[in-house]
Amino acid sequence: MISGTTKLIAHLGYPTESFRAPMIYNPYFEKHGIDAVVVPLGCKAQDYPAFLKLVFRLSNIHGALVTMPHKVTTIALLDEVLTTAEIAGSCNAIRLGPGGTLVGDMFDGEGFVRGVLRKGRTLAGARVLVVGAGGVGAAIAASLAKAGVSELALFDAHAPLAEALGERLRTHYPALTVTVGSNDPAGYDIVVNATPLGMKDGDPLPMDVERIAPSTFVGEVVMKQEITPFLAAARARGCDFQIGTDMLFEQIPAYLEFFGLPTTTADELRAVARIAY
Amino acid sequence: MISGTTKLIAHLGYPTESFRAPMIYNPYFEKHGIDAVVVPLGCKAQDYPAFLKLVFRLSNIHGALVTMPHKVTTIALLDEVLTTAEIAGSCNAIRLGPGGTLVGDMFDGEGFVRGVLRKGRTLAGARVLVVGAGGVGAAIAASLAKAGVSELALFDAHAPLAEALGERLRTHYPALTVTVGSNDPAGYDIVVNATPLGMKDGDPLPMDVERIAPSTFVGEVVMKQEITPFLAAARARGCDFQIGTDMLFEQIPAYLEFFGLPTTTADELRAVARIAY
Repeated sequence: MISGTTKLIAHLGYPTESFRAPMIYNPYFEKHGIDAVVVPLGCKAQDYPAFLKLVFRLSNIHGALVTMPHKVTTIALLDEVLTTAEIAGSCNAIRLGPGGTLVGDMFDGEGFVRGVLRKGRTLAGARVLVVGAGGVGAAIAASLAKAGVSELALFDAHAPLAEALGERLRTHYPALTVTVGSNDPAGYDIVVNATPLGMKDGDPLPMDVERIAPSTFVGEVVMKQEITPFLAAARARGCDFQIGTDMLFEQIPAYLEFFGLPTTTADELRAVARIAY
Repeated sequence: MISGTTKLIAHLGYPTESFRAPMIYNPYFEKHGIDAVVVPLGCKAQDYPAFLKLVFRLSNIHGALVTMPHKVTTIALLDEVLTTAEIAGSCNAIRLGPGGTLVGDMFDGEGFVRGVLRKGRTLAGARVLVVGAGGVGAAIAASLAKAGVSELALFDAHAPLAEALGERLRTHYPALTVTVGSNDPAGYDIVVNATPLGMKDGDPLPMDVERIAPSTFVGEVVMKQEITPFLAAARARGCDFQIGTDMLFEQIPAYLEFFGLPTTTADELRAVARIAY
């Protein structure tokens, strides 16, 4: 129940019609009597820098979730960019820091990491291939580095994206082995599709599934369907895997911690969410 | 349930802790499946002009409720000020007009008027005394003029306030008889306390109740208690009366019409509201 004491979490993006966060967070807040609410604010790109500043001067603001088209431009508007967001080159959560400063981080990759760990896999020392070095791929790579993987192989059809991401990873994690340029999944502990391939019927697979070992863990970011063609092929080879919405729900507890709100498990969030997954 | 399609009604004011509108509108919206939500946005005075403009550029904005300290300053920020707001000198509701323009009106007085009419009293041709020419008194006077009263007597302990209000009323309603300077209630069909007297223990009564005829209808704006000392004294004289929260709930249907949302009765709104009255 929204009142004048309710903590406002602004959901900033445009258009708003496909926003999912309100239907995930708000039922959870309601169930547990947490006096907070996620509210979509459909801010367009040209208004965003001025609006963001004013939103964080509201007396009841508690934080912001940031989505398209503002994830990248947010970085330049913050006072403090946490390492994962800096490597990812984008930000999807903002909170107030000391003196009204804006502190931003990026949790897409954290959701991926938490999902993998919860499925019993080890990331410390692991060798991981991330195919796709756009926003979500960069976020996943940054979080994998933070989680202690020993090697990251990066590939993007647009090679400079992967090169630039590799440079940022090497700068922040000098002990990490970073290789760039191949999407061959042979020999990795974990392989991830972080491209949009699988969104459209007839898309090619993001990598040669025949070369994925059955012991390799396979991750997917596409949420259009639970079992994408890529996951279906990996499953047919005997691989364990993580679906796209696991990453979505696993990242919510990380946001709740970032915002200093009572947290819970991804499973509970999925159970109370009022969206069809 | 808030989603990306929900119409946002911004509740603009500071501080937000005492806001009541979310607990009145939102349970009503929820009960009837109206996809709209009132959300407090605790905007401070110095940020308000810039913030107001940007809020109305949000893709999901539907309107705004305006409260302290912005009711007066809003007038200068609008593209179109409806007559009642212009006379009142303040605005408590804004909607988008053609071409993204901002259109504002003032409904405090409309709530008072609707309450009086619903209690079976006639306003067309009535003689009314309004004691208190601050924000709420001016709003009530403006709405009474719109409702067709024949005479308005205005009084304020700060005489220039009543004088200026009288001038604005004469400008917009040249056929209306406006007198200024006495709070003697003798001879009026309706008398209204629009001062804060009654908020504090030991406040004097706003007018000489002994001179109110039993046939006079008595209105009150103070909401601190249902039966204020002024209403208790009027009731003892046999007068019919209207309590402060009647004005509050009677104005909500007017806002709903202004915003183009499905409307209802004050009684239903009071029944579903999650506030203690």
